[in-house]
Amino acid sequence: MNFLEERIQKDGVVKEGNVLKVDSFLNHQMDIALFEQMGEEFLRRFQNEKIDKILTIEASGIGIACIVARYFRVPVVFAKKAKSVNLDGEMYVAEVESFTHKNKNQVIVSKKFLSAGEHVLIIDDFLANGCALQGLISIVKEAGAIVDGIGIAIEKGFQPGGRIIRNLGYRLESLAIIEAMDAATGQITFREQPVCVHRD
Amino acid sequence: MNFLEERIQKDGVVKEGNVLKVDSFLNHQMDIALFEQMGEEFLRRFQNEKIDKILTIEASGIGIACIVARYFRVPVVFAKKAKSVNLDGEMYVAEVESFTHKNKNQVIVSKKFLSAGEHVLIIDDFLANGCALQGLISIVKEAGAIVDGIGIAIEKGFQPGGRIIRNLGYRLESLAIIEAMDAATGQITFREQPVCVHRD
Repeated sequence: MNFLEERIQKDGVVKEGNVLKVDSFLNHQMDIALFEQMGEEFLRRFQNEKIDKILTIEASGIGIACIVARYFRVPVVFAKKAKSVNLDGEMYVAEVESFTHKNKNQVIVSKKFLSAGEHVLIIDDFLANGCALQGLISIVKEAGAIVDGIGIAIEKGFQPGGRIIRNLGYRLESLAIIEAMDAATGQITFREQPVCVHRD
Repeated sequence: MNFLEERIQKDGVVKEGNVLKVDSFLNHQMDIALFEQMGEEFLRRFQNEKIDKILTIEASGIGIACIVARYFRVPVVFAKKAKSVNLDGEMYVAEVESFTHKNKNQVIVSKKFLSAGEHVLIIDDFLANGCALQGLISIVKEAGAIVDGIGIAIEKGFQPGGRIIRNLGYRLESLAIIEAMDAATGQITFREQPVCVHRD
C-alpha cells in the first residue's frame, strides 16, 4: 500500500451508501504534511508535462491544489460552484450534478484566468461519478486550453467516473483507487497500482 | 508599503459599492508564492504563540490557510457554510451573514476537530463586517478552545469588523488594511502599519 492507502486504511471510515469518511485528514480537517506527500507524488507522475496552471473546484479541492502547486511552481484557479456577486465579467460555465449533495451546480471560472493554449493540471480530492470533473474538463476545452493531466487523491473505482475519463483518453492519476468497501466490516479494498516513490 | 499592499495596488481593482476585486491573485486565481510570503509574515507576527491548529472557512480562506499551516506545522480545519450529507455526528454551528453574498449561512465545524484547550489561529482572506469571523470565534469558544490570534490578508478598515474584534481584546493581524478606496479614480489608501520583514 502507498502512503495514502495506508492513511485511508487507518483513519477512513466506511459508512452505508458507499460513503467513505476521510474528514479527519482530507476534506474537513486537512493534514498538510500528507498533502505535501501528494504534491511530491503528483510531480513525480506528471514530471514530463509542462504545466502552466492547476485547476480545481471549491471547496475541498482547494487545499490539496494549493500544496500541490508549490511543487509545480504554478498558480491555482479554483472553479466556483455558485454565481457570486463579486464575479463579474465574462465567465465559463458548466452545469454539474454533485453525487454527495444530490443537487445541480453551475461550475464557474472567469475567462480572465484560463487562456487558449495553456497547459492545465486538474486536481481534486475525490472522483466518484465524475460530474464535477467533467464540468472542469468542459471549461478547459471551452477556453481552448489543454488538459495535460488529472490528479485525484481518492477515486471510487466501483463508480464510473474514472473509467469514463480514461476511456476519453485523458491521463488520470488517482493516488488511491477503492475497488470495494464494506460498511458492515469496515473493509476497504484498493486497486493494485505501481508503488509510489516518496520520502517519509 | 509591504508586499501585499504593493500587490493590491498593482493588481487590485476598485469597483462601485466598496468592492475590491483581488481575484487575479487571492480568491479565484491564487498566487501560491504570495501565499508563502503571507505564511512567513504570519509566523513572524505570531511566533510567540504555541499554535495547535489553524481554523478557516470555505472557500477562499482554505488556500491561504493551507500554505500558512506549512509554516506553523499544524493541521487546518475549514468550517463549512452549508450542511453536508457527508458531515454526520455532532457539530458546532454558528449563524453568520455574508456581506458579499447578502445571505445567511450556518458555519459548521465537526466537534471531532476542535477540542477544549486547543490553541487556534484563525486565518481568512478578507475581513469587512466580520460576521464570518464572529461565527468562527463563537465556534472556538463553544469548543472550549482558545483563539490565540487572527490573521487576515486584507481588512477593509472602513468597515466595522476589525474594530469590533480588536475592541473585544483579540489579537488581530491584517497584512493590509484599507482605509479608503475610490472606484472613480481607482485609488486605494492603506492604514500605516509596521514594516513586514520578508524575503523576496
